Formats: sequence, structure tokens, C-alpha cells
Amino acid sequence: MNQWWVAGFSWELDGKPVARKILNRPVVLFRLPSGEVGALEDRCCHKELPLSCGSVEGRGVRCGYHGLLFNREGACIEIPGQDRIPSKARVQSYPVMERDQIVWVWIGEFADAKPSSEPPSYTFHSDPSYQFGGGNYHYDAPYQLIHDNLMDLSHLGYVHLKTIGGNAPVHMNAQTRVSVEGDTVKLVRTMLDSEPPPTYTAAWPFKGLVDRWQEIEFHVSHIRIWTGALDAGEGSLEDPSRGGFHMRGFHGITPETETTTHYFWSVASNLQTDIEKVKQTVIEQSAATFDEDKLIIEAQYRNQREFPVRNQIDIHVDVGPNRVRRVIDRLLKQPQSA
Amino acid sequence: MNQWWVAGFSWELDGKPVARKILNRPVVLFRLPSGEVGALEDRCCHKELPLSCGSVEGRGVRCGYHGLLFNREGACIEIPGQDRIPSKARVQSYPVMERDQIVWVWIGEFADAKPSSEPPSYTFHSDPSYQFGGGNYHYDAPYQLIHDNLMDLSHLGYVHLKTIGGNAPVHMNAQTRVSVEGDTVKLVRTMLDSEPPPTYTAAWPFKGLVDRWQEIEFHVSHIRIWTGALDAGEGSLEDPSRGGFHMRGFHGITPETETTTHYFWSVASNLQTDIEKVKQTVIEQSAATFDEDKLIIEAQYRNQREFPVRNQIDIHVDVGPNRVRRVIDRLLKQPQSA
Amino acid sequence: MNQWWVAGFSWELDGKPVARKILNRPVVLFRLPSGEVGALEDRCCHKELPLSCGSVEGRGVRCGYHGLLFNREGACIEIPGQDRIPSKARVQSYPVMERDQIVWVWIGEFADAKPSSEPPSYTFHSDPSYQFGGGNYHYDAPYQLIHDNLMDLSHLGYVHLKTIGGNAPVHMNAQTRVSVEGDTVKLVRTMLDSEPPPTYTAAWPFKGLVDRWQEIEFHVSHIRIWTGALDAGEGSLEDPSRGGFHMRGFHGITPETETTTHYFWSVASNLQTDIEKVKQTVIEQSAATFDEDKLIIEAQYRNQREFPVRNQIDIHVDVGPNRVRRVIDRLLKQPQSA
Repeated sequence: MNQWWVAGFSWELDGKPVARKILNRPVVLFRLPSGEVGALEDRCCHKELPLSCGSVEGRGVRCGYHGLLFNREGACIEIPGQDRIPSKARVQSYPVMERDQIVWVWIGEFADAKPSSEPPSYTFHSDPSYQFGGGNYHYDAPYQLIHDNLMDLSHLGYVHLKTIGGNAPVHMNAQTRVSVEGDTVKLVRTMLDSEPPPTYTAAWPFKGLVDRWQEIEFHVSHIRIWTGALDAGEGSLEDPSRGGFHMRGFHGITPETETTTHYFWSVASNLQTDIEKVKQTVIEQSAATFDEDKLIIEAQYRNQREFPVRNQIDIHVDVGPNRVRRVIDRLLKQPQSA
Repeated sequence: MNQWWVAGFSWELDGKPVARKILNRPVVLFRLPSGEVGALEDRCCHKELPLSCGSVEGRGVRCGYHGLLFNREGACIEIPGQDRIPSKARVQSYPVMERDQIVWVWIGEFADAKPSSEPPSYTFHSDPSYQFGGGNYHYDAPYQLIHDNLMDLSHLGYVHLKTIGGNAPVHMNAQTRVSVEGDTVKLVRTMLDSEPPPTYTAAWPFKGLVDRWQEIEFHVSHIRIWTGALDAGEGSLEDPSRGGFHMRGFHGITPETETTTHYFWSVASNLQTDIEKVKQTVIEQSAATFDEDKLIIEAQYRNQREFPVRNQIDIHVDVGPNRVRRVIDRLLKQPQSA
Repeated sequence: MNQWWVAGFSWELDGKPVARKILNRPVVLFRLPSGEVGALEDRCCHKELPLSCGSVEGRGVRCGYHGLLFNREGACIEIPGQDRIPSKARVQSYPVMERDQIVWVWIGEFADAKPSSEPPSYTFHSDPSYQFGGGNYHYDAPYQLIHDNLMDLSHLGYVHLKTIGGNAPVHMNAQTRVSVEGDTVKLVRTMLDSEPPPTYTAAWPFKGLVDRWQEIEFHVSHIRIWTGALDAGEGSLEDPSRGGFHMRGFHGITPETETTTHYFWSVASNLQTDIEKVKQTVIEQSAATFDEDKLIIEAQYRNQREFPVRNQIDIHVDVGPNRVRRVIDRLLKQPQSA
């Protein structure tokens, strides 16, 4: 609440309205021919058909049942066959902003909430030295389980054996540092002198063993994962301008309901040679990785509902996920309005 | 309650029993080799298998589990391997009548209810100057939304753009008169000098612009829609014996449960040339139209459940649907028995 | 409760873990490379992923998320990347025994329950003069309806017309004797001078009419059905060492939940000539028979939920099923622990 949430990627809005439920609110997203993006309550105020069943026109979105036309502010601006437009003929509109190819929607506590900030920037979608691609998933699992998964990359060794994972003990024994600042949790892991995983060798001409890093930055609405590797010993992993192969992962995690989640991901990498082919490989392998995660996380959630008991043990890898859970718990307890 | 409801069309009963739930009551419909039609509670009184899983014989319907045989009155008349038939060995039977190819079932308040009237006639299924065809749909939506849809043909302009709809503003601006008499609501709309829609031109050799009429007659169990057109200026639309192209729509709307509905439709038209081909066109285009309606109505109902709020605005086209809702409300409040 | 239940057949455990819910408890079954079988609670004690999503290793089953390894006793014996293993790192294990190709699991009232008996033997899976095959079904119906079905083979005449059924009146009029001893119910039916059904003639060279027997023995966890036939008049059906064609059916009926059931079946027969082909026929026809039963029983259960009323009449064939229901009722009322 009172947050910008990822509602989609810019390339999803192509002339047809898109239905998407965000924090339990059904929203229709659309792009006008002028390029402007709108986000309205997905329900015509006449007979309740989803506006996403309608069509986009120059001035707004038109309902597919009796043709009522709504502008980006949610006002009905045309009722076919009727001159007078009742003042109640309007639907709720949501603040929406596009930035770096990400469509953000502000979900406030009150219907007339105004955003108190700009949505975050994400420059790797706009930086010409990076190639990127992405997609989105619908998860039958609550957002916390996706947080857990992304904040603990030790699972790579078991879940992603065939793609970015590789040698399990290396992952489990990686050096890990966790730090918290406000609502942001940072987790840094390094794996020196390790075998590069299949995705890396497909994407970059490493000479042999590599020094790898994984830097994970949690924000309430999304997680940034900066992974990469350079040839072993060829630079310090503490140096932010280190060379080598870089992958910048964006992971927008938007609750759909209490038990389901939208997951928007992109991967940007600094390819230099054979760009189109390697980009294709990185995207495909990333998607394969996320498919594997989805299987695990949805099976985990089904099983959590299966068992009434909640006792779990903690192990060393849980430090990152647990810090994030503490941030979320604190925010949920916080009174929304004074 | 205490009504004849459409249970099906005559051509659906072809030797195999048909399972159909009507007003929350599971019913098995069957036709004996003698031609007589039966309607029984769809549950063997022995082990509760649906009788519709069984088979039809000369004297009744036989259960597919242990072979108990029930006649049209619901009495068990044979228990294989047992001489004595207990007096409790019977299932409820429903009054059923076939008339003009429509199978009507009387659903009374009490189990032993006797019909207090004949089911309605529908002569266009028996009139040799009319060609007809029909079908049925199962709707995941309550019956009221189908009433709304049929009582307001202004939606033709938006929902049925590609078939019978055509020019949206013409529909929205059509002259409309509504009248109520007892439980019957009549709605008459005329559209003079208008472009004939694709279905019409496929079915009739119009010279150019046409005068169209739509006469809708609501009865609790079904809606009759008489639409048609004649060449513009070639006759009065007030004249009941007007010429031109006529389409007589029968729409049996039978609640299955509170939230689901059976929809039985037929379209009869007075074709004169190239009959088989044009009839095929009319039927196919009608079916396409009903497919479009089903999409809209089921999406509407899903959305109504999605949103807890019920506030809707009324517009000019709602006068017909609202009259019907008032009739239904009055009947529902009426005590069923003194 | 406090029973051995059939959890599966030996041939189902082939290196991959198998998930199966037994009496509402999700269990993972697995066979170690050593051949030993394990049965654990299907939930990792770390993040609750089903262990059945993991893999089997030499010492136990390894979770597919973070690699925790559990032995057959349920103890966690390895946490990758961590030396200390908390004492709480364990999952419940279930007593499990393989006997005559059947995997039995003891479900006790308390977590640490020890079996008070051996699981039953079933020698026809180990007897070289018998050929057998089997399979399993998941039923959307409670176990009682499967008991009813198997304890009353009179349904063969109607449900299994095309396979083992045949002449309905013959089945309905068969001589039947029922006896109860402790928790065991026995039902013996004989049909002298009757037409052999299609499965029988496919499997054995009968000369003409046959004397058939059906001996059904109910145990709480399973039902044994010994059917067969010899040429009419060629021996006494009272003689346990009678010749002819024998089919020994094993039917393990294990509640999954209150409303769903696992059904494990095998059919063993004493084939003498053309063994492989006839065995194939017997298995295929048995499977076809069980498919027919499944359709009926699931339709019956759907219908029982459809109708709130529970009144059923009893007929002559219900004596076997009713005796079994009385045994079950008595056991359910019995206090589980003193």
C-alpha cells in the first residue's frame, strides 16, 4: 500500500487493453495512440463488464457491451445514444508511470491517493551497452516465497543444476555478507576460483576458472540481482567497476492476491561479441531457470497448505530471506495513515 | 416455481437418457420407444447412481448399476433377482409435455404438484412457411444477466459488430417503446432507413436501405424476439402482416442453479429462395451471435463476483431490462402457497 | 488407524520418489539403491518442499530445494554448507514393509507408533503357477463405495456387460452365502450351468456351460476375490482344491482422504497354455472392468453430494456390503487407545 508496484513492461501495451489484478484490485492497463498509458478499475460502471473486454480508442477505453467511453482519469466521456452523462458515470483511476520500459502503478490506501514519490529508475533497460529481455509469470504462491527464493541463491546448486547452477557445494559454501538499510536488504556473495556455470560459458569467453559475485538488493516492490564473473584473479570483486561478464536481473514482485503473485523479470547483460545469439541464450536460459523456480515454489506452497504445522528449521542460507521478512513484517504492522 | 420451464428440444431425446439440472433439481429426461417423454429425479433410490447413467427400455429407464427399472411415473417396476418391490422403491417424477418441438417440465413447489396450465405453444416450429434450427448453451451466469442482454438489443452495435450488429449509433438511437401487461414485458424498436446488417443481406435480397423492427416479448420462462426488415418505405412497421424478411427467435431461459443457466434458442425465418443455404447461414450467424453474447455475459458475471460493490449507473437502454427485473422481483416476493 | 495399509506395489518404486497421501498424511515412498524401502512425511523440515520433488541417493532422499538429506528413519544427515545439524532437523518416518510385491505402510494413531503385527502375506504374487499383473487408480469417491461395489458382484450383469459380466439375470439370481468372523466378511456365490463370460472364454478352453464361483473375503485394508469356473458338473464347488480356471483378485483399498481413495488391484490366474497372450487378455479385460466400475462409483458419489437426502432402499444384493459397513462402523466407534 502507498507504493509504486510493477504492473507490467512497456512492450506489453500494444493497443489492446490488458487486465491485471494488483493487490486484489482488478486493473485495466492501456496505451492510447498518443503513447500515454492509463490504468483504470477494470469494471464498467454501467453493467460491470471488464473494460479490458473492450477496445482502446484515441480518447480512452470503450466498453465492449454498450460502448461507454472512459478517459485516462476514469471519467465517462460518451454514452452512445444518450446526451446527458451522469456525474456518477466514472470509474476509479490509478496513478501510472512508465519509466525505463517498466509500467508502475501506485496503489494507495485511499481511492484518491496521490503518489508521494517517483517510481524507481532502472537504467539497464536504457543503457546501450546492455542487451536485455524479459517476461512475466503468474505464480500460485504468495510473494514471500518468491522473496525467499531470490534472497537465497544457494538453491542454485540444487534447483538449477542444468542451467545457472552447477556445482552445489560451491554455492553452499560461498562467502555471504548481509546488510540492512531502511527497507533495503543487501546480500553479497562471492565464489572465487570456481567453475563457470553453463549459462556463463555460453555467454562469455572465459579462460578457465572464474571469480563470481552475486549482489542482491531487496526493495519492497522489486529485487535487483547483479551477478557476474571475471577470469580468476583478474580483478577485485570489491571494485564496483570490475570487468568481465555482467548480468543485471530485475525482478518485480507484485502481489496479485494474498496467495498469488505477478513476477516480472528481465535480464540485461553486457555482451560484446556475437550479441544476438548470446543474448538469445541468456534470455532462454534465464527463462528456463525461472521455470524451474516456479515449479519448486508452487510445489512448496501447495505443500504448506497441505500441512497444518508450520514448524520449520532455519539453516545458514536463511539469513537473507529472514532479514527481508523482518522488513515486511515491520511495514505491515506500521499504521498506514495517522 | 409452479411454472413450465424449457427442459430441452424434442430432437435432443433420441434413445439415450439426458441429464439436466433444472431449478436445482437434477432431472433425467428420456423418450420411450413409444415416443412418450419422461422426466424423473436423476437418482436411483437404491445406491443413488444417476439414472441418466442407465439405459432406456420399452417400459422406462433402467439403472446402470443393479438394473432397477423405473417407469415414467417414477415407480420401480423391476428389481432383478428379487420378487418383492418395496413400496418405497420409487423416485420423483415431473410433469413433462412436448409441444412444438419444445420439451417443457413443470417444476412445482411441492413434490406432487400438478400443472395448473398447458405449456405455451410456439407455432413457428410447426409452420411450414418457416425454416428453423436451434441449439442450447450452458451459462456460468445467473438468468437475470441473460434477460438483461436480450431485453436490450442496443448492445448489438458493440457486441455483434461482425454479425447482426452493424452500425452502432443506429442501434443506440433506435426508437423504443416499452409496455408491461401482467408478467409480460413488450419492447418495440424501429430503425427506419438503415443499412441492413450482414446476416440480413446474406438471407434476403434487399434493394438497399431497409426499415427494421425488433419486437421483444418477455415471459418468465422464455423471450420471443421478432426481428425483421423490409425495403425502406415499402410498408408500415405498425402492420402486423407486414412483408419482408422475418426472424422469429425463441429463447428459453431456464435457471439451472442460482448462478448458472440453461439457454435454449431457435431461430425461424421465412425463407423463400435458396432455402437450405440461407437457412444454414441464418443458423450459423445466430450461433455466432450467441457465442459473442456468452463471452460477454460470463465475463460480466465473473467481474460482478470480483467486485464487492454493486453500484451501477442506469442509461437509456436499461428501461426494458429494468421492467423485467421488476416483474421477477414481484414474483419472487409473492408467497408461493397460501 | 493402527493398521497396515497398502501404499503401493513394489514395481512402482524404481529410483524416483513417489508421493502418495495415505489417510490424510502426505507420504514420500522411495527405494534406496540397496533395495530397502522408506516412507517419510513428504515435507522437508526446512522450507516445506515435498521431499518427493527431490532425488533418491545411497543414504536417503535429498530435498530438491537446498539439498538437505534424510535417511529412512527421517533424520536429516546432511545440510549442505553447514556442519551442525540441529536436533529438530527431522521428519516423521512411517513403518514400511514389502511383502509379496505389496508395499505396506503402518499408519498409527501416534507419530511414534510401532506396528503390532506383520502385514498380510499374499502368496499368489509369489506362486510360480500364477501369472499376475495389476495397477492402481485414484478415486474421487470415499472407500465405502468401493467396498460396496466389490462386496456385491451382482452389478457385473449391468456394469460389466461387455467384459466379465454377461448374463444379468444369472448374476442376480446366484446363490449367495455370507458369513462374518471378527473383522472379516466372507461372501460365497455360485452359478451352476451358466454361460462363461467373454474374459473367461478368452482365457481358458471351456467346453460349454460352466459352474462358476465367486468367493469374496473382506479385510479392513483389502478385499480378496477368488473367482473361477470349471466345466459344468466336472467337480464340486465346495472342494477348495477344485480345478478349472482361477482368478485371484487383490484389491487394496486405502483411504487417501475422507472423500478420495487409492485403489490397488492385481489379478493372478493359473494359466497353462498360450500364457503370455492370455495373461495380457486377462489383465486388459480386468483393467477395462475397473475402468467401468470407476465411472459408476464416481458418478454415484457426485450424485450423493448432489442430493441432500440420504434415503436409499435395500435390496437382496446389499447383504454383503451391509455386513462390511457394520464392521467398519464398529471399528470407527472403538476407542483407539485405552
